[in-house]
Amino acid sequence: GEMAKSTQLIDNEVFRAYATYTAIVLLKMMLMSLITAYFRITRKAFVNPEDTASFGKGESAKKFLRTDPDVERVRRGHLNDLENIVPFVGIGLLYALSGPELSTALLHFRIFVGARIFHTFAYLIPLPQPGRGLSWAVGYSVTFSMAYRVLKTVWLL
Amino acid sequence: GEMAKSTQLIDNEVFRAYATYTAIVLLKMMLMSLITAYFRITRKAFVNPEDTASFGKGESAKKFLRTDPDVERVRRGHLNDLENIVPFVGIGLLYALSGPELSTALLHFRIFVGARIFHTFAYLIPLPQPGRGLSWAVGYSVTFSMAYRVLKTVWLL
Amino acid sequence: GEMAKSTQLIDNEVFRAYATYTAIVLLKMMLMSLITAYFRITRKAFVNPEDTASFGKGESAKKFLRTDPDVERVRRGHLNDLENIVPFVGIGLLYALSGPELSTALLHFRIFVGARIFHTFAYLIPLPQPGRGLSWAVGYSVTFSMAYRVLKTVWLL
Repeated sequence: GEMAKSTQLIDNEVFRAYATYTAIVLLKMMLMSLITAYFRITRKAFVNPEDTASFGKGESAKKFLRTDPDVERVRRGHLNDLENIVPFVGIGLLYALSGPELSTALLHFRIFVGARIFHTFAYLIPLPQPGRGLSWAVGYSVTFSMAYRVLKTVWLL
Repeated sequence: GEMAKSTQLIDNEVFRAYATYTAIVLLKMMLMSLITAYFRITRKAFVNPEDTASFGKGESAKKFLRTDPDVERVRRGHLNDLENIVPFVGIGLLYALSGPELSTALLHFRIFVGARIFHTFAYLIPLPQPGRGLSWAVGYSVTFSMAYRVLKTVWLL
Repeated sequence: GEMAKSTQLIDNEVFRAYATYTAIVLLKMMLMSLITAYFRITRKAFVNPEDTASFGKGESAKKFLRTDPDVERVRRGHLNDLENIVPFVGIGLLYALSGPELSTALLHFRIFVGARIFHTFAYLIPLPQPGRGLSWAVGYSVTFSMAYRVLKTVWLL
């Protein structure tokens, strides 16, 4: 029946691991929105005039339409997440469906998600380089490794 | 046969609902590109020198290489879509495969897509706050709720 | 067994084609990060103070915290990729599961990926317009065509 069909994929252990790590890393990415909002409010640095209306009219509110280094830093971290987590989610799904060993798949997922969590701390604290650069490269390499297996397994051009 | 296999997922009603709402909300996001292009052309505000070549050479074309508040507003709405619709598409897929009740799933999908359509109007008109903020929070909460169910159902770390 | 389940989708030829082209176009998008890094290093144009620490302390390093036209151009190409490849990956997956003919599916995937590769060259060289604009429109239309078939096939609102 419908139910049986819908739970097939989700019964597969590699797919369950993919689902777990993908949900975690997407929630981590979503957290960046809250951190941006936190810094916008505490630093009083907004970009839309309608967002400063509660500070009064005219010049008194206008001075809060400005950029703030902390806000911009979180936004760069958020965009870097999009650039790296989108390929992980897409290629990771294909990888999970390509029938890898559970232990190999877990290794890929754990390293990627660990690297991206470290990357966020490295960006926001910030840590001295090459901390952020290395964590970026590790996540990048994991996605590349999964893409290599996907292409080797499914290649149909 | 191949056909039977390929239509299994698509026969599942929750998955069909997911596919319908995901296609709609991704088309809505794609619409932002057209709105950006519309404002770039009507406001004559471009970013690439090669895009202003039809306005002539040298200084006469150079003055159209500028930012415009309406263009920047649409672009912020587009980026906000990316930041919020990407997690919905990824987590929503896992959620649809986790075997939720159709009525519960429809509730999630409808509220999310409704909230994002409202968010776009709130951003572009613009509506006074907290209109845009609330619609953002509603969509965010729906994705969070789906992630919670996914993690509860599939958890394999 | 687990393995049989996990390889069902991947045995479907349309899905294999989808996986191949999606992996290729996501790798192409990931390449934009490397090109950005290349231009940041060769043009000495950075955005984070910690990235210029190796150039020394104080004013000598501060002068490398600047924007560079080549870096900004690659970044715009990268963002345009995100805006267009995310809908392709999401809608393409649903399309691949909607049971299209292999030849029709291959036509969609090949044109999209070809158009996005051309778009990258058009942006980075840059080619005179309407080269970049047309390649963008071609990719956009392919995704729109797949979305139309998805909605026609699965519609459940």
